[in-house]
Amino acid sequence: MKIRIGIAGYGNLGRGVECAVQNTPDMELTALLTRRDPSSIQTHTGVPVYHMSDAAKLQDQIDVMILCGGSANDLPEQTPELAQYFNVVDSFDTHAKIPEHFSRVDEACKQANKIGVISVGWDPGMFSLNRVIAQAILPNGQDYTFWGKGVSQGHSDAVRRIEGVKDARQYTIPVESALERVRSGENPVLTTRQKHTRECFVVAEEGADRAKIETAIKTMPNYFADYDTTVHFISEEEMRKNHSGIPHGGRVFRCGVTGWENENRHIIEYSLKLDSNPEFTSSILTAYARAAYRLYKEGQTGCKTVLDIAPAYLHPASSDELRATLL
Amino acid sequence: MKIRIGIAGYGNLGRGVECAVQNTPDMELTALLTRRDPSSIQTHTGVPVYHMSDAAKLQDQIDVMILCGGSANDLPEQTPELAQYFNVVDSFDTHAKIPEHFSRVDEACKQANKIGVISVGWDPGMFSLNRVIAQAILPNGQDYTFWGKGVSQGHSDAVRRIEGVKDARQYTIPVESALERVRSGENPVLTTRQKHTRECFVVAEEGADRAKIETAIKTMPNYFADYDTTVHFISEEEMRKNHSGIPHGGRVFRCGVTGWENENRHIIEYSLKLDSNPEFTSSILTAYARAAYRLYKEGQTGCKTVLDIAPAYLHPASSDELRATLL
Repeated sequence: MKIRIGIAGYGNLGRGVECAVQNTPDMELTALLTRRDPSSIQTHTGVPVYHMSDAAKLQDQIDVMILCGGSANDLPEQTPELAQYFNVVDSFDTHAKIPEHFSRVDEACKQANKIGVISVGWDPGMFSLNRVIAQAILPNGQDYTFWGKGVSQGHSDAVRRIEGVKDARQYTIPVESALERVRSGENPVLTTRQKHTRECFVVAEEGADRAKIETAIKTMPNYFADYDTTVHFISEEEMRKNHSGIPHGGRVFRCGVTGWENENRHIIEYSLKLDSNPEFTSSILTAYARAAYRLYKEGQTGCKTVLDIAPAYLHPASSDELRATLL
Repeated sequence: MKIRIGIAGYGNLGRGVECAVQNTPDMELTALLTRRDPSSIQTHTGVPVYHMSDAAKLQDQIDVMILCGGSANDLPEQTPELAQYFNVVDSFDTHAKIPEHFSRVDEACKQANKIGVISVGWDPGMFSLNRVIAQAILPNGQDYTFWGKGVSQGHSDAVRRIEGVKDARQYTIPVESALERVRSGENPVLTTRQKHTRECFVVAEEGADRAKIETAIKTMPNYFADYDTTVHFISEEEMRKNHSGIPHGGRVFRCGVTGWENENRHIIEYSLKLDSNPEFTSSILTAYARAAYRLYKEGQTGCKTVLDIAPAYLHPASSDELRATLL
């Protein structure tokens, strides 16, 4: 019996889950839910497409619904809503609103005797898991998180909203010398500017004032003002040719000391280098869908995060096999 | 109420746990158990020392016993034995014998309604956890584990057993070009020789045949024959001065692909750089002692490994706090 997976939302993330499930022998894709007109959607696999409002009718056909909408507008509504009918997994990533989202999903899941797993991805997600474990191991130490090199969707959007900008792509880049200082174990205090630089590739509208655009970018509060930012104006063709990928990545460090005189230094580094940010996130969502299904089968209910789930639940092999081969 | 910790065995690992518990506000060290004459042991903290045969008398005074003996002779006996009286955590690291050890500890724990956590450390332990999670996320991929640069106790001992050798230290060193090939994503097939080199520092007995010692090392089956090995003869003073530390470390990689054409590559790297191998392992044991205590308080029983324990159990903060601050 394969785990029957549903996907809610067919953007980059939904397409990534469609592909990930196809490569996972213990799962099968049963349905796609959308808020658009189902007949307008052409899926890669030909999986049946239903309108979101038909969710209730599918409840006996799907074990886990993977939500692939956005954190700003989709997930706060959809995750608790769909938890009435299915076990749910989402990638809610607005850090500050996680506790609120958690309690809404927890309530919905408990009422329906379902499992929900929220904030699954790499940050929040794998990075959080590494921060928690490494802090627990080395209580006397310092955390560092670096992002990139990779495309920040939020920053790209912010540049696109500037008058005269036709298209834009923003890369977040960790400062190599800062990485080296952290790796050396000196536990540096680093400002925002010392940790990352930002690089923007901009297609300007014809006749637009490029100097004005550049200033608007570099002085934008929150997004760019605290960073050293480089702006390149390029053609639409160059944008298409060299900047159509969505790579990302990052590193989480824990630098701690042990010993009666704090004389021994230890550095834990977890690093990701990703060609496709959405496909990697989709792969994590898919692994946690397996965990959600297993927890549900055990009779557990309520909302979980990556911090609440033992690693063995993620892997297709049994605990006996894992102990014999991977421990 | 602090978690009351006992230590069984006072070698490098036991001393590391003594120090780690001292730096952990939610724990206190209650007793040390030894197979030696208790009066012969001078602890750093002055914690009371008892003979191993008095374990039963201490069962109401200790929540979790951390076993700090060796995998070859101590733990196979001691962990099931002490599980009659305490929740237990050990660092059993003979990979091939883990299933057997697991089932003996599991039986003992279930009879006594205790929790046992075995094979806690970094390999097995943190490396295993990373292998399992990364395989689950990227099923279409390849694992690589590199160790070092660091002191291998087993290889150092093997050199010390050679006739004419007074003292020896062996460093395992990952081959930098192999690391780079893995990081580049080319998924190389690497032989044993291509992954690691071995470097030995040897103090020879006076008048010993150095050429014969060097040949004996380099041709030793299993330990050295499959590696490029360098041998340096040094003085006792140099050994003391430059090779008294026990550093270690290593890296686990998962290199996988996603996408309909496997067109997107992803590299997950978990890396450790440790000044003191035993103190780092002790720190992990201490964090898992917290998990063992919490699982016990929930009414769980039986044997667990790092694969069976959710990350939140390791960290002193509550799940609510973790979600609000670290997720």
